[in-house]
Amino acid sequence: MNPTSHATTQDLGDIRTVLEEDVLAVNELIIKRMDSPIEMIPNLAKHLVMAGGKRVRPKLALTVSRLLGHSADAHIKLAACIEFIHTATLLHDDVVDGSALRRGRATANILWGNQASILVGDFLFSRAFVLMVEMGSLEILNVLSVAASRIAEGEVMQLMNQGNVDASLESYFEMIEAKTAKLFEAAAEAGVLIAKPADEALRLKFKEFGRCLGLAFQIVDDVLDYDYTNVVSGKKAGTDFEEGKITLPLIYAYENASISERNRLREMFEQPASLRAEAFTGMADYIKQSGALLRAHDVAVGYANKACEILADLPPSEGKELLLEIAYGSAMRHA
Amino acid sequence: MNPTSHATTQDLGDIRTVLEEDVLAVNELIIKRMDSPIEMIPNLAKHLVMAGGKRVRPKLALTVSRLLGHSADAHIKLAACIEFIHTATLLHDDVVDGSALRRGRATANILWGNQASILVGDFLFSRAFVLMVEMGSLEILNVLSVAASRIAEGEVMQLMNQGNVDASLESYFEMIEAKTAKLFEAAAEAGVLIAKPADEALRLKFKEFGRCLGLAFQIVDDVLDYDYTNVVSGKKAGTDFEEGKITLPLIYAYENASISERNRLREMFEQPASLRAEAFTGMADYIKQSGALLRAHDVAVGYANKACEILADLPPSEGKELLLEIAYGSAMRHA
Repeated sequence: MNPTSHATTQDLGDIRTVLEEDVLAVNELIIKRMDSPIEMIPNLAKHLVMAGGKRVRPKLALTVSRLLGHSADAHIKLAACIEFIHTATLLHDDVVDGSALRRGRATANILWGNQASILVGDFLFSRAFVLMVEMGSLEILNVLSVAASRIAEGEVMQLMNQGNVDASLESYFEMIEAKTAKLFEAAAEAGVLIAKPADEALRLKFKEFGRCLGLAFQIVDDVLDYDYTNVVSGKKAGTDFEEGKITLPLIYAYENASISERNRLREMFEQPASLRAEAFTGMADYIKQSGALLRAHDVAVGYANKACEILADLPPSEGKELLLEIAYGSAMRHA
Repeated sequence: MNPTSHATTQDLGDIRTVLEEDVLAVNELIIKRMDSPIEMIPNLAKHLVMAGGKRVRPKLALTVSRLLGHSADAHIKLAACIEFIHTATLLHDDVVDGSALRRGRATANILWGNQASILVGDFLFSRAFVLMVEMGSLEILNVLSVAASRIAEGEVMQLMNQGNVDASLESYFEMIEAKTAKLFEAAAEAGVLIAKPADEALRLKFKEFGRCLGLAFQIVDDVLDYDYTNVVSGKKAGTDFEEGKITLPLIYAYENASISERNRLREMFEQPASLRAEAFTGMADYIKQSGALLRAHDVAVGYANKACEILADLPPSEGKELLLEIAYGSAMRHA
């Protein structure tokens, strides 16, 4: 049996087993297509890609396409593309943020340097497009290239909002919609394009499902950053705060703060990052006690609920259950 | 008259005028498609794109497609894509190299910071693919995505060879072939794909023309870096040397150096960049006097000649003359 082969609709009886095999096939393809005669490239890329990421985005694309009856191989390439785009942005993010820890390990920029991380990110990003071109669908290429340019816009928005405690709720949502939700949206949309390319209504439905899921996912990420007693995320808590990122818990806390508390928060973000790092646990306790953390988490749960409601009119199936699990799982990661 | 319209074959009598109009249309499209509601993106991108670059790569694609009788609009988009990819790599290069000067002006990383340069590079790169998808040719997408991943490999090779005075001639040529010649090759190849998509022989011919032109171009760039009395390049001479890049003039000088001179060169590249900067004019004089600079330039002229020979069997035309001018112009930039 060909090691890269995987289950088809003939044996779709147990979609969970099929999808587990799909994920293995995706991992195999990722390893194969990140290869290069320049050894440092696969070494650096593997360090991040094989560090036990959750593969939420590729799983989303796989599950949507399987749920809609896709049985050929294109979804494996699609899922690998999406993970390549995601990995490229992580490599660049870690340089931009000066991060030292990701998925519980030292970041590539710490181990190989910023320069290598930038260039290997570019390599993976290009390889994502090479894979996409092989898939041969201009529609999927359109969805993913537009998503990629929107992600970059979201990252720039984030950079420009750094340290700005007056950042509005609207600008926060615009930013996370671009930097995070867009790729979830594109993954779900492309999953439909692979399985049912002509069904515009399905496409819009799953696109919106992906968007809501992505918003829930990012907000939970932002909540977890202040939840320092929690160790499931693999990220060091307090990272966003240290880097001066203004996220939903902080926006809510600021909204309800007294004038003197607001001044304290403002001063906090005018300090050097090292002083913020020292002040983190006090700040996290304050944000938790203010109710802002729970309020932000409620918003995430709201988006997860919305995502699930979107699928309400689909007939019951194992595939649908899996999507609901992904949605609730994203909103419940701190449990 | 529509300001973005431009000449077609009906008035191809004077191809130089037509191409001048094409370049204006390309510039207009570039400005339009680098736009974003996040103001910093077009501001940063314009700083580099509108700094008076020579547009050699887009001109190559335009000229090839016009020479082969292309009369529709696709070449304008193609040329803009190519310039976007080139600009994205320049932005990332300047971060990787810590460069302060490009095209005679302060670099974007100096003015807006490394973080913004990385992210706006990603944005332009994504937008290049959005444009390509609009062109609708999977073959062109294939040529340019493969080229982009090869460019990233070349940049990583360059990074890994930094300071290695024992770098071989082979590794130098492999590196410049990837980081520079590949985009010239792709520009010429894609120019054929637009005009004569079915003609495989033409495609291979122009591809090789682009490759040789790109090699000539890069070698001259590397020569100019040691030619500090020359001020035409807009780059500060000595930059490669300061950054520890091992280029052809240095490889030739090292090849012919005595043991004591080799040790001196080796020590030179073990020093911090600031000490190399101080030692630059002495080193440049040494490399010039050793004959290595002229020898490297001869190799560039050899590639320019080879490029021109490749076109020898094409009937005489204004378009062909223009391509020969581009080839010789690239090899004679220091004149």
